[in-house]
Amino acid sequence: MRLYDYAASANCYKARLLLALLRREYVRIPVDIFAGDTLTAEHAPLNPARETPILQLDDGTLLPQSHAILWFLGEGTAFLPPNLLQRAQVVQWLLFEQEHVMTGIGGARFRILTGRDPDLIPSRLQLATSGLTMLEAQLRAAPFLVGDTCSIADIANFAYTHVAGEAGLELADHPAVGAWLERITELPGFVDDLIPYPDNACPGSSRSIYDPPSALP
Amino acid sequence: MRLYDYAASANCYKARLLLALLRREYVRIPVDIFAGDTLTAEHAPLNPARETPILQLDDGTLLPQSHAILWFLGEGTAFLPPNLLQRAQVVQWLLFEQEHVMTGIGGARFRILTGRDPDLIPSRLQLATSGLTMLEAQLRAAPFLVGDTCSIADIANFAYTHVAGEAGLELADHPAVGAWLERITELPGFVDDLIPYPDNACPGSSRSIYDPPSALP
Repeated sequence: MRLYDYAASANCYKARLLLALLRREYVRIPVDIFAGDTLTAEHAPLNPARETPILQLDDGTLLPQSHAILWFLGEGTAFLPPNLLQRAQVVQWLLFEQEHVMTGIGGARFRILTGRDPDLIPSRLQLATSGLTMLEAQLRAAPFLVGDTCSIADIANFAYTHVAGEAGLELADHPAVGAWLERITELPGFVDDLIPYPDNACPGSSRSIYDPPSALP
Repeated sequence: MRLYDYAASANCYKARLLLALLRREYVRIPVDIFAGDTLTAEHAPLNPARETPILQLDDGTLLPQSHAILWFLGEGTAFLPPNLLQRAQVVQWLLFEQEHVMTGIGGARFRILTGRDPDLIPSRLQLATSGLTMLEAQLRAAPFLVGDTCSIADIANFAYTHVAGEAGLELADHPAVGAWLERITELPGFVDDLIPYPDNACPGSSRSIYDPPSALP
């Protein structure tokens, strides 16, 4: 398998984390989003949305979208429960992540760290705060988001939540979220290889030629 | 089963459409979002996100979130393919819908029809246009979004796309999308019971007491 991957993207990190927890072998293909790598003619057929990550299976099949990759890799493992209701709840938390965690926490952090679109920060922080409140309520009642063990719902929500402090969000106000983050870091095989945004992610950098066509993250 | 339901919400319509296609019996519990129904003490335990739809199973279990409901109801039917890769692709299109179709098409339409937050319309229309372009590319190559038959991926994406014209989007420019919409309306059991936004959804109405805490849709 190949993972088309941007090292500073927490969306890509979701896939890398599950691959590590499952001890799966794969080849990482670096994609420098902000150097324009997703805009090249070579990249176009990989993903019409021109986003990362993309998982390429050994038969050449391309699977874009971090949560689709988590579902594909998680099926048949302890990270995707077999129970129907729990699976539907996993879907629920994957959608929650995109709305509140990626767009909220990730969106605020991206703009704070890179200096892009500062006018969007307040609305993103509002989404982030409501997201942390809902995570806290859920995690006061249970150790993980769905069932008693770590699922892809937790991995998806971990990726941007564990760097919420970089968006100025105070995790000390959300102790159950903090304990849950800690619980995930203690899983056998856990890695955190998310790197900071490089210089070329910041507007004004001579190496930055890319403006994301939509909210990123 | 009970569906906590807002008749003018295309998110709720996703659930109603699948229930109709599956000929499932259920009781509809109307929730008047803009009259503040989701803000009451009675509603709070139903869904911390204070959103609709919510499916309540006969044993009392509550399942919020339109796509989680589609997954739950679709499992074991022709609307959720058994193949692992196809399931992951269904997940991909469910996330795509939330990002491009609901937020883009739905978000632009909601603000155009209700007069709320007009400054958000351009960014929503940009998301909508990229979404329609990606749907068109996919549907030129295949009759449905995943595999050869209608799945919950199609139902999710149909809900806001079939009213894209009300956001000023020109479906004539996307003929494969138009043919796909038509294909879905021809399914046995198809219903379209989405109603227009009522007066109290519009700011300034004396009956409107609700401002959504986050982007709606």
